[in-house]
Amino acid sequence: MMGSDFAPLSELQGVADFAKKHKSAKDTEFFFIGDEEIINKHLPTFDFTGVKYSIVHADQVVSMDDDASVALKQKKNSSIAIGVQMQKEGKVDAFLSAGNTGAMLSTSTVLLGRIAGVSRPTIGTFFPSLNINPTLILDAGANVDSKAKFLYEFAVMGSLYFKEMFGVENPKVALLNIGEEASKGNELALETYKLLKGSNLNFIGNVEGRDIFVGKADVIVCDGFTGNILLKFAESIMGFFKATFRNYAKRSFFKKLRVGLFAPTLKDIFKDFDYQEHGGVPMLGVNGVIIIGHGSSSGLAVENMIKRSIEIISKDLNKKIENELKK
Amino acid sequence: MMGSDFAPLSELQGVADFAKKHKSAKDTEFFFIGDEEIINKHLPTFDFTGVKYSIVHADQVVSMDDDASVALKQKKNSSIAIGVQMQKEGKVDAFLSAGNTGAMLSTSTVLLGRIAGVSRPTIGTFFPSLNINPTLILDAGANVDSKAKFLYEFAVMGSLYFKEMFGVENPKVALLNIGEEASKGNELALETYKLLKGSNLNFIGNVEGRDIFVGKADVIVCDGFTGNILLKFAESIMGFFKATFRNYAKRSFFKKLRVGLFAPTLKDIFKDFDYQEHGGVPMLGVNGVIIIGHGSSSGLAVENMIKRSIEIISKDLNKKIENELKK
Repeated sequence: MMGSDFAPLSELQGVADFAKKHKSAKDTEFFFIGDEEIINKHLPTFDFTGVKYSIVHADQVVSMDDDASVALKQKKNSSIAIGVQMQKEGKVDAFLSAGNTGAMLSTSTVLLGRIAGVSRPTIGTFFPSLNINPTLILDAGANVDSKAKFLYEFAVMGSLYFKEMFGVENPKVALLNIGEEASKGNELALETYKLLKGSNLNFIGNVEGRDIFVGKADVIVCDGFTGNILLKFAESIMGFFKATFRNYAKRSFFKKLRVGLFAPTLKDIFKDFDYQEHGGVPMLGVNGVIIIGHGSSSGLAVENMIKRSIEIISKDLNKKIENELKK
Repeated sequence: MMGSDFAPLSELQGVADFAKKHKSAKDTEFFFIGDEEIINKHLPTFDFTGVKYSIVHADQVVSMDDDASVALKQKKNSSIAIGVQMQKEGKVDAFLSAGNTGAMLSTSTVLLGRIAGVSRPTIGTFFPSLNINPTLILDAGANVDSKAKFLYEFAVMGSLYFKEMFGVENPKVALLNIGEEASKGNELALETYKLLKGSNLNFIGNVEGRDIFVGKADVIVCDGFTGNILLKFAESIMGFFKATFRNYAKRSFFKKLRVGLFAPTLKDIFKDFDYQEHGGVPMLGVNGVIIIGHGSSSGLAVENMIKRSIEIISKDLNKKIENELKK
């Protein structure tokens, strides 16, 4: 309840909207983890008729500026620490938060442990593409110094996740690289290429930066350093264009008019860039279901995070990952 | 003359336009290196009145698909091999090509050698930003496996180049990373941070992917793997938006009309994304002046490549690099 920029409003809104729209909500039990007083203050704003929920008080909050290890070491009563602990004890089937990503990652990894066969848990991110489905890029920043083996595991987990999410039977998996040929890339890419080539994934080879938006692949693997820089750069595109449009509009009355008239269309067109739509992403590879949302998550994003977590649970994604990595 | 997608038209157009606009063109002597027959066929299309030029026949061409070592080993009569050789022998002060970047890099490095103190030559690329000047990001792909020392040298060369190009006294230099704090990043970034911090560059610290378009720094260093992926991704943004606009326009007559009415404005606004404007980039660190243009270079891009090469020569950039790295 304390994670998003508008906490707990986005969180409560997301639950309320989910409950309104989905019949399965009747079988879902919610635990609102966070400051009891704050949550109670905002509860009456939303309609929770027929929703099974209870409040779990947490008197600490991991802030966005806190170090990743804070929830584990100093703030054991934070909503993140309590949530992951409840997941560990089996009190909940999934834990969702739009809070501090680093803290979510480290707390989950340490408390829940890894799925058998997984070297490093990972988080991915969805990029819009000219395909029907967005493209899943992983690792998006969980592992800055990666080995080829890690990237291979990311590919396996990403492929299974993509399949379950979008019903694509054999997701096209690619390696992010600086050229299409197998001989291109840095040491990590060269080694990863060989592993992917020899796997039973639907590996389509290397893709370059320019192939991401085109949607050449469903799942693209890269090290977390590259992935994180790419993700943050991509997230800044809309802001850059908006600023560019604003500067243009300032130049003359007619230019302002033109931009003003087109603004609703632009908004409509750029909707794909709105990561709210996709909601959060799961932390793949941990022994549990952990969904991480963007700090700026809206009610819609939280609603989608809930849907996502239920899909992952009902499709038993973690078991599938374990089985696939056993091969 | 054989490098661009429209060779030799863009090349000839660029020279003709440069000569028309700049008085210094009278002191400039041009050597058109390429297939004599093809060049002669197209020469009459352009006005070369008062331009000093001669044709240097090259009966081979390094294609875009050729391996980087081809010009050195198999195509010694290619325009790239001949051009770099002429530069080496002092017959020309600069060699410009919009051809195969890999071949330009390897041929220049081997034939010309490096400036004293330079471990690895590099190429940079300009990103548009909300600042007056674009942002120089380097390395853009010349060195996929880099060491901290290389990145430090890239920063020195990039800073000197930026200063000479835009008259900025102490360009703001930053390290591309996944967080602002000195403790963030992969091993390479951590080590590079220390070197930059201890240098006499105007090092402003780490910047993230989202800071590029904002223009937080004038010069941003990263390894060539990350830089190349980022560059190609950025180059694909416009194409993605155009396709998105086209798809939107297809949905209804009114939507088509709206996009159609706004198209000229969009074109105007997105001009910054046109790398034609910046022309090519120099290969920094080699013993010579080598300018590499984009394959899709227009006449305007070639014209700017010529301007750029003259600035580099007249400001004796390579000597300045040598002196700075000596410190």
